[in-house]
Amino acid sequence: MQIDLNCDLGEAFGNYSFGGDKDIIPLITSANIACGFHAGDENVMNETIQLAKENNIGIGAHPGLPDLQGFGRRTMDIAPKEIYNLVIYQLGALNGFCKVHGVKINHVKPHGALYQMGARDSKIAHAIAQAVYDFDSELVFVGLSNTLLITEAEAVGLKVASEVFADRRYEDDGQLVSRKEPDATISNTDEALQQVLKMVTENKVISKNGKEIDLKADTICVHGDGEHALEFVTQIRKKLTKEGIDIQSL
Amino acid sequence: MQIDLNCDLGEAFGNYSFGGDKDIIPLITSANIACGFHAGDENVMNETIQLAKENNIGIGAHPGLPDLQGFGRRTMDIAPKEIYNLVIYQLGALNGFCKVHGVKINHVKPHGALYQMGARDSKIAHAIAQAVYDFDSELVFVGLSNTLLITEAEAVGLKVASEVFADRRYEDDGQLVSRKEPDATISNTDEALQQVLKMVTENKVISKNGKEIDLKADTICVHGDGEHALEFVTQIRKKLTKEGIDIQSL
Amino acid sequence: MQIDLNCDLGEAFGNYSFGGDKDIIPLITSANIACGFHAGDENVMNETIQLAKENNIGIGAHPGLPDLQGFGRRTMDIAPKEIYNLVIYQLGALNGFCKVHGVKINHVKPHGALYQMGARDSKIAHAIAQAVYDFDSELVFVGLSNTLLITEAEAVGLKVASEVFADRRYEDDGQLVSRKEPDATISNTDEALQQVLKMVTENKVISKNGKEIDLKADTICVHGDGEHALEFVTQIRKKLTKEGIDIQSL
Amino acid sequence: MQIDLNCDLGEAFGNYSFGGDKDIIPLITSANIACGFHAGDENVMNETIQLAKENNIGIGAHPGLPDLQGFGRRTMDIAPKEIYNLVIYQLGALNGFCKVHGVKINHVKPHGALYQMGARDSKIAHAIAQAVYDFDSELVFVGLSNTLLITEAEAVGLKVASEVFADRRYEDDGQLVSRKEPDATISNTDEALQQVLKMVTENKVISKNGKEIDLKADTICVHGDGEHALEFVTQIRKKLTKEGIDIQSL
Repeated sequence: MQIDLNCDLGEAFGNYSFGGDKDIIPLITSANIACGFHAGDENVMNETIQLAKENNIGIGAHPGLPDLQGFGRRTMDIAPKEIYNLVIYQLGALNGFCKVHGVKINHVKPHGALYQMGARDSKIAHAIAQAVYDFDSELVFVGLSNTLLITEAEAVGLKVASEVFADRRYEDDGQLVSRKEPDATISNTDEALQQVLKMVTENKVISKNGKEIDLKADTICVHGDGEHALEFVTQIRKKLTKEGIDIQSL
Repeated sequence: MQIDLNCDLGEAFGNYSFGGDKDIIPLITSANIACGFHAGDENVMNETIQLAKENNIGIGAHPGLPDLQGFGRRTMDIAPKEIYNLVIYQLGALNGFCKVHGVKINHVKPHGALYQMGARDSKIAHAIAQAVYDFDSELVFVGLSNTLLITEAEAVGLKVASEVFADRRYEDDGQLVSRKEPDATISNTDEALQQVLKMVTENKVISKNGKEIDLKADTICVHGDGEHALEFVTQIRKKLTKEGIDIQSL
Repeated sequence: MQIDLNCDLGEAFGNYSFGGDKDIIPLITSANIACGFHAGDENVMNETIQLAKENNIGIGAHPGLPDLQGFGRRTMDIAPKEIYNLVIYQLGALNGFCKVHGVKINHVKPHGALYQMGARDSKIAHAIAQAVYDFDSELVFVGLSNTLLITEAEAVGLKVASEVFADRRYEDDGQLVSRKEPDATISNTDEALQQVLKMVTENKVISKNGKEIDLKADTICVHGDGEHALEFVTQIRKKLTKEGIDIQSL
Repeated sequence: MQIDLNCDLGEAFGNYSFGGDKDIIPLITSANIACGFHAGDENVMNETIQLAKENNIGIGAHPGLPDLQGFGRRTMDIAPKEIYNLVIYQLGALNGFCKVHGVKINHVKPHGALYQMGARDSKIAHAIAQAVYDFDSELVFVGLSNTLLITEAEAVGLKVASEVFADRRYEDDGQLVSRKEPDATISNTDEALQQVLKMVTENKVISKNGKEIDLKADTICVHGDGEHALEFVTQIRKKLTKEGIDIQSL
């Protein structure tokens, strides 16, 4: 039994720092690196690719909506054809830094509202997946378990990895509870650890309404910012290791 | 004897159109395609790569400063290390569209203030050239004839193409007269045609002060916007062809 | 019987021109001036206020979503509290230029997706209207006839002007047919003129499904860009004048 | 004898926090509030005006260059006419929030590279000062002591306040040592306190070359971010108070 731990990195911008990339990197196996639309910029991207390379973790592109102010978390009504283009642009840009550092993109995970839009709308999911496939058909597509992101990516011929969240609550249909809701996140560490274990070992999760739902767990999303983040990831690692689960890159 | 005709393309943005790309393309041999910093966006880039491919002209990246409002024409005090990064980012982004269309970037020409800054500052010129080389050492570097852009690009090991301008006036030291000056451009067609011919056949130009200076002419920059632009390029082609000069891509 | 003719102006940005402001101004009575979020910038705003002042037409603020690439036409999921703030910001910015030119803002009309969002969502409509009221309670609020924009603006205590469109088709519920639909606009001049006349004299319009619906017509939106735009507005003026209707500012 | 303590506030943007506004506010008498070009956005501005009002400190506009990535610290070659416009735009935008909170802008201090450009270039200084005067001739103009910012502002008829820095070193001509230099800032607290006291009580400072130069000290710039910032400001207040100097708003 094995699992990947992924984290969003490279979310600083210009003079603004964000997250504790250097601290979280030793604890994870895959990095989703912002590409300059919702966060990150060319200087941050260069540093982050360098950092990921030095720590020998899986490098992923993390394309988002063109909305720095909203951190890519505000749904925007963008046509699928334009979604395709903005994914290609961001993959290309990140790949530029990979080329100069002699590394390769391993996976792609859409960010924030783009991820949510793709999880719920097959045209958006298809546009994202097609862009990834056309850019490089060997890339692993990371999407929310049980959603259109996964099925559309499989349909275009991509390898997929189903993502689960340690500290987010689930709707009955397997979607994440929106961040706008008060109960979107799990703040109790034990509860989150139980959720992680159940997802990884049983491929199941309890929804916010108490319903047990099936999901697939190839990679767990963790965070490097916020209080207790590092401690929490450390505990996840400890728990998983204790249960004999291999933590390794996609 | 041969010469390339290059033109800046893909400078539209969102709802804003710019230039007559479709009309100028049949008249030129190389396209410098904006990469989304000073002009262009992912949708424009996708269309422009498609258009260049269909017309079988040389594809070039045209990276610029991060200043859409100023169209990349306002000098900005950006550190060489950051210049390096913004060139990598833009080359990568354009390359994304090349990948999905099955074409290759052939040359790189810095835009506007970035071009001017590189022509006058060896650290900037070096940073641009090193980025191009690190991204793909086979790319042709297009820079203002007789300037640091050319010498620094040669120093890092790149193939270079010296650019001359049909309708811009020259300083005694071979730099272009700044667009801020009233006599920056040549509006008289015959005068411009004479300048072109002299540059291509004699490798010389008369500066704004009447001094004859040496330069190398591998490619001529022409424009697709503004009054008479197409007619002017048509006349350049006619003149060059009449003189037995081959017009072909770099 | 009287009517106002309003037009969106000042939609250029940086090096990008847009619309024929100078040509349309003599034909209209109110200008909706972009404030730098979806279009326009500080230089364009200064010129446009100057132009509106010289031509003695009503000056209006035309705040939009922070989406230059999408020209403010892409719905964005922005919280009402933030909608309030972005309206205040844009009203303030435009008012800066009014102050230095010694003129006053007369009306406010939300732009594009912000207008559409307000027409359909009472919280958004309220946030926009409250911002306008808090900024200056004497301003006239221009909104789509028959929608929440009008009722919410009246509820906060603003004077309102109901807007109708000469060349846009209507849904049965009085909303505009979305620009994404093929039949969003009326290209036949006579049909558009008939629509205008019916709206102004009878306060009625025929929806795209042939249903006659009531609306109020205080101001007609016309355009300065696109083919035939000026000719079309000239014909509207002729038609209205011939029918004895006064064309004057709000 | 009296002095004002000013600090740059409202420099967060979207999801990015910056500085410890709430902690520094009780220690200062004037706030320079970012206006959305180099930092800040409409949501941050609204909160910051609210905060300044609650704490009853002087409200100042802090207009900067249109360069969020560079935090307005990168010199840009912008024409004076356009500098005028970008100052008007930003003053207007901030004033929008002042209007809805029932407060008034008291002073204006240009930010970063705009401040430095104005200190060294009379056309830029004049453009900034004229914009401030045209917007509201009663505003106090804050500029670097001994520079063109002060003389040009006085020339257009503005009240001025000469600014000095507690922790920045000075060139022999009274300009600040550039942040690019290793010795730009003073990290030793006692040294900084001595500099402050000498400036306030003697109107003199020792340049980085050991030369004693004259300056006028109406307001001291302090910072709310970085290590020890709050402690440092607390010590400045203690020192000044002990010497019998009134700390109050401009």
